[in-house]
Amino acid sequence: MTSSPEQTPLFAVVMAGGSGTRFWPLSRCRRPKQLLPLAEGGSLLAATVSRLAPLVASARTWVVTTTAVADAVRRELPQLSPENVLAEPVGRDTAACVGWVAWRLARLHPGAVTLVLPSDHVVGDAPAWRSALAAAAATASARGELVTIGVCASRPESGFGYLELGDELAVIQGLSVHRVRSFVEKPSRERAAEFMALGNFRWNSGIFAWTVSAIERAIRTHLPELAAGLDAMMADVDKRGEPEALQRHYPSLPSVSVDFGVMEKASNVAAVCAGFSWSDVGSWSALSELPAAVPGAGVTRGEVVAVDSEGCVLVSEGPLVATVGIRDLVVVATPDAVLVVPKAQAQRVKELVEELRRRKREDLL
Amino acid sequence: MTSSPEQTPLFAVVMAGGSGTRFWPLSRCRRPKQLLPLAEGGSLLAATVSRLAPLVASARTWVVTTTAVADAVRRELPQLSPENVLAEPVGRDTAACVGWVAWRLARLHPGAVTLVLPSDHVVGDAPAWRSALAAAAATASARGELVTIGVCASRPESGFGYLELGDELAVIQGLSVHRVRSFVEKPSRERAAEFMALGNFRWNSGIFAWTVSAIERAIRTHLPELAAGLDAMMADVDKRGEPEALQRHYPSLPSVSVDFGVMEKASNVAAVCAGFSWSDVGSWSALSELPAAVPGAGVTRGEVVAVDSEGCVLVSEGPLVATVGIRDLVVVATPDAVLVVPKAQAQRVKELVEELRRRKREDLL
Repeated sequence: MTSSPEQTPLFAVVMAGGSGTRFWPLSRCRRPKQLLPLAEGGSLLAATVSRLAPLVASARTWVVTTTAVADAVRRELPQLSPENVLAEPVGRDTAACVGWVAWRLARLHPGAVTLVLPSDHVVGDAPAWRSALAAAAATASARGELVTIGVCASRPESGFGYLELGDELAVIQGLSVHRVRSFVEKPSRERAAEFMALGNFRWNSGIFAWTVSAIERAIRTHLPELAAGLDAMMADVDKRGEPEALQRHYPSLPSVSVDFGVMEKASNVAAVCAGFSWSDVGSWSALSELPAAVPGAGVTRGEVVAVDSEGCVLVSEGPLVATVGIRDLVVVATPDAVLVVPKAQAQRVKELVEELRRRKREDLL
Repeated sequence: MTSSPEQTPLFAVVMAGGSGTRFWPLSRCRRPKQLLPLAEGGSLLAATVSRLAPLVASARTWVVTTTAVADAVRRELPQLSPENVLAEPVGRDTAACVGWVAWRLARLHPGAVTLVLPSDHVVGDAPAWRSALAAAAATASARGELVTIGVCASRPESGFGYLELGDELAVIQGLSVHRVRSFVEKPSRERAAEFMALGNFRWNSGIFAWTVSAIERAIRTHLPELAAGLDAMMADVDKRGEPEALQRHYPSLPSVSVDFGVMEKASNVAAVCAGFSWSDVGSWSALSELPAAVPGAGVTRGEVVAVDSEGCVLVSEGPLVATVGIRDLVVVATPDAVLVVPKAQAQRVKELVEELRRRKREDLL
């Protein structure tokens, strides 16, 4: 276990504002992916906060979500103080979220180092993950870089973003730290295969570390409109209190990702290279690729009876799921809807969601 | 429409005592196949009684079932007087059922002609079906034969029983009537293909016609133990009333099918050859082979959203069933259980039922 010295307290910001339909029928408007019991033993969000606990004190762990699901998030994280769950009135993508937290921390702990991480990923090796986060925080603290974590690609995945690595800058706590030359958004499968052959590309894990001053400076340089909005909002916090100031200012902050708005434009970006097994769990089929999946049998959650069924993802949150003789299918049952789709076509769930919307079945969305 | 002359009233006995698990999770202990909404617009039982109505007066239509489901059967058939639903205390196969009705009718209408038919089949062409039944009743009435209805085989089905036809005896109401040379239980697929090539084999529809005196005589000859039991039971009916007499005698009647116990042994068996499209709906997959099934899309019942799904049987009695990109699957959803099985393996539902029994999940059976 690594902890940072008292003079540079280590904060963690877990971004839990996402929504989406890729996990329908489990995911609904008021129940986004990070709240679903997709991790073994609970939600991805709870698993993320638990995984983080040995590295960052719970008092310094903040979770940012939207007001629509903030109460559900607080219930999901009884180990956190309710005020550590920050609620955006509306989601404005990750740059606004990261900026808000930085501006807020600048007043409380201007010398802080911050880890920023997604709430809806699965990690196979928690100690290796924490070591990488600790090395990223140490790099951010020592060098003032904007630090990302790059994960070794184990397959030519076209659904992820990639980091192109440049020179090695240092070796921190046994992990190699490189300059980041460029960010590549979801490449073609051919290009992803090239990246693997070239060797200097890593999956962009979406995990960052920086000092409050470094990210503030970068936002002022690369997203001046966001910086101005945040300045105005923080000034208003003093006058009206935080909830009202957020209501007035947050919705008009520019909506852009921190990757696109800051990281791709900044020159002081570094990556810690790590090897933990990792998945962003992009669809139902991803569940069966997780390290915890039983080879052959596939993945089951909830009440399932599977006879001679292989390579499936079988999930019940209501009616018992009973299968016989099936291969490579996703079956998800809830009290009001049942999904059946071949694993290889799991992303087509969105077509069903569109069809339900056309039929005005918002009660199921 | 055909009706028989007043001096030989035509009765119909619909056998609705069956139970089974082939339509799990829709079929349960207290809800056998004939009560399931597998016909278009309602249960197979209600469809059978409606189909029969133009031929046989409802006052002369009797339905035989078991006490366990008698009330459900009466609710399903509001057009019948409740006392026309006869309840066996326990099922003792079809010979006992047929015998009980014959012994009962012998007292009320000794000259009656009786049609005996299953309650759980689907028929594509109701007028042709009624014509065949009328011809069978006329044959039974005119010649004193035990008459069956043989359906032209449209495929080498190994799941049905077959009738081997001998000489033509007559042409009644335009339909050919043949001596039946033998009964063949579920042949191999190769043998079934041979039968089709030979031309003198028909599917055994399980529909019979006979006079009360002919079936009584046949039971006394071929199932003397059953005849003795029925004699004792009917004598006791006078002393104790029917319910108590049934309770005392019915459970010890020999349990044998009328096909095996009587028809295969009798020499005066004839078959009316008919050509209506017919299915015994032996499993979920059979639903998609019915004449009413839409080619390509398959069969849906209840709330279903199917995107790019072909050749499936999709049934909901609870949660909405949503599918995308699937082929030739059976999906059946109820509030407490969901079944997914390839159509070609639909008969493997029994393996799931066994597994549930092993897990002591009688609540789902």
